[in-house]
Amino acid sequence: MRNLLFNISYNGTNYHGYQVQENAITVAETLQDGIEKVIKVRENIVGCSRTDSKVHANNYYFNMKTECSIPEEKFVIALNSVLPEDICVKSCVEVSDDFHSRYNCVSKEYIYKIWNNDIKNPFLKDLALHYKGKLNVDYMNECAKEFIGTYDFKAFCATGGKEMDTTRTIYDCSVSRDGDLVIFRVRGDGFLYNMVRIMVGTLIELHEKKLDKSVVKKIIYSKDRKNAGKTAKPQGLYLNQVFYGDENYD
Amino acid sequence: MRNLLFNISYNGTNYHGYQVQENAITVAETLQDGIEKVIKVRENIVGCSRTDSKVHANNYYFNMKTECSIPEEKFVIALNSVLPEDICVKSCVEVSDDFHSRYNCVSKEYIYKIWNNDIKNPFLKDLALHYKGKLNVDYMNECAKEFIGTYDFKAFCATGGKEMDTTRTIYDCSVSRDGDLVIFRVRGDGFLYNMVRIMVGTLIELHEKKLDKSVVKKIIYSKDRKNAGKTAKPQGLYLNQVFYGDENYD
Repeated sequence: MRNLLFNISYNGTNYHGYQVQENAITVAETLQDGIEKVIKVRENIVGCSRTDSKVHANNYYFNMKTECSIPEEKFVIALNSVLPEDICVKSCVEVSDDFHSRYNCVSKEYIYKIWNNDIKNPFLKDLALHYKGKLNVDYMNECAKEFIGTYDFKAFCATGGKEMDTTRTIYDCSVSRDGDLVIFRVRGDGFLYNMVRIMVGTLIELHEKKLDKSVVKKIIYSKDRKNAGKTAKPQGLYLNQVFYGDENYD
Repeated sequence: MRNLLFNISYNGTNYHGYQVQENAITVAETLQDGIEKVIKVRENIVGCSRTDSKVHANNYYFNMKTECSIPEEKFVIALNSVLPEDICVKSCVEVSDDFHSRYNCVSKEYIYKIWNNDIKNPFLKDLALHYKGKLNVDYMNECAKEFIGTYDFKAFCATGGKEMDTTRTIYDCSVSRDGDLVIFRVRGDGFLYNMVRIMVGTLIELHEKKLDKSVVKKIIYSKDRKNAGKTAKPQGLYLNQVFYGDENYD
């Protein structure tokens, strides 16, 4: 029995998130369909993370235990030839039997893209949030730094979130500009339900209300979702990187 | 009566081209619907060019004669608020009564995007051609230069083309690379039906067959469509710029 780890990328526009669910097309189900076409067996796959409807992934990992003998490189080519154009497989490597794409993950990085121009960008309609009025990126970056550290992020968890322990460690958080594209980037040991989107919505609200960056800490310490900003729309969010300790499975 | 010239950009993925046609959603009809919502009158609009189904435009122009008195800047904002996310209005200016967005055009520039990586890019699925195997951009650029000049481009006109005079002048033509994106760029006084897509298909075929750049001229002189390459798919094509002599209507 081999344990194979796949690195994929997907455009989440046409999917109801990663995780299999009834009556909705998901990334996981589409992957299982593709794998079944290639190896004629429907295997279980273990994803590294849930992603919401319409959220994208530049790098996502799933692992699969299988008796199939197809070489890794050929598996990548065969799977890409049967998958739809909005999901691609970048690599496949054999990992140890006890490797688990979710439990072995030590940190994850998300990015959130904002098209910051008074005129919308028709080519980013499902790939970024459109925000009119020039954003002060230096100020937003200073506010973002306030998220760095180990805190109870309950105020940044959607009310539907089931996590008992809402403490997370944010290793890095920044906001930068690349032309008209403003990019929010955050790396942490884990994220609560809708956490990144609420962080983005909060930074935008702070910006609009011209509040001091110290307000970020006040919201965190309040542990009250009502004090944080709106949940930014899913289309701008990308799971960007998943880190497995010293190993690199790109 | 004012004559208004609009500069727009659109993602052609969900449209059956620019030109109004029965039983299909087109860019022109969507614009007319939007304008009607804003000024309560259904006006005729004159586009600068036809574009095929799924073809995009970074800059497209149309003009419209109207009795409405809404100021140009307000018209842009109002129209953007009612148009779908895949069409945006960048500007609106009043032009002379005899200005015609198609007849006054002196040249147009198209670009064609090719995602050149063995792994497809899920974020460019409707925005570029995917080509595996590294393209030799220096060679393709040399071949592209062979298109520059005034020639009868009948060999590069789809058989359905209705043009009687198939002579066109190409002012500039090049191929360049930006990371994994290969960009074909061509500016000319006019283009035949599917001409740019056939030019791209021909360059790819020459590349695959390792033919000398002199073959481009042989195909042109043959005036026979059968000697040129396949028509590259529409998703990679963008009307990039439209030139109106000394005036700049951006």
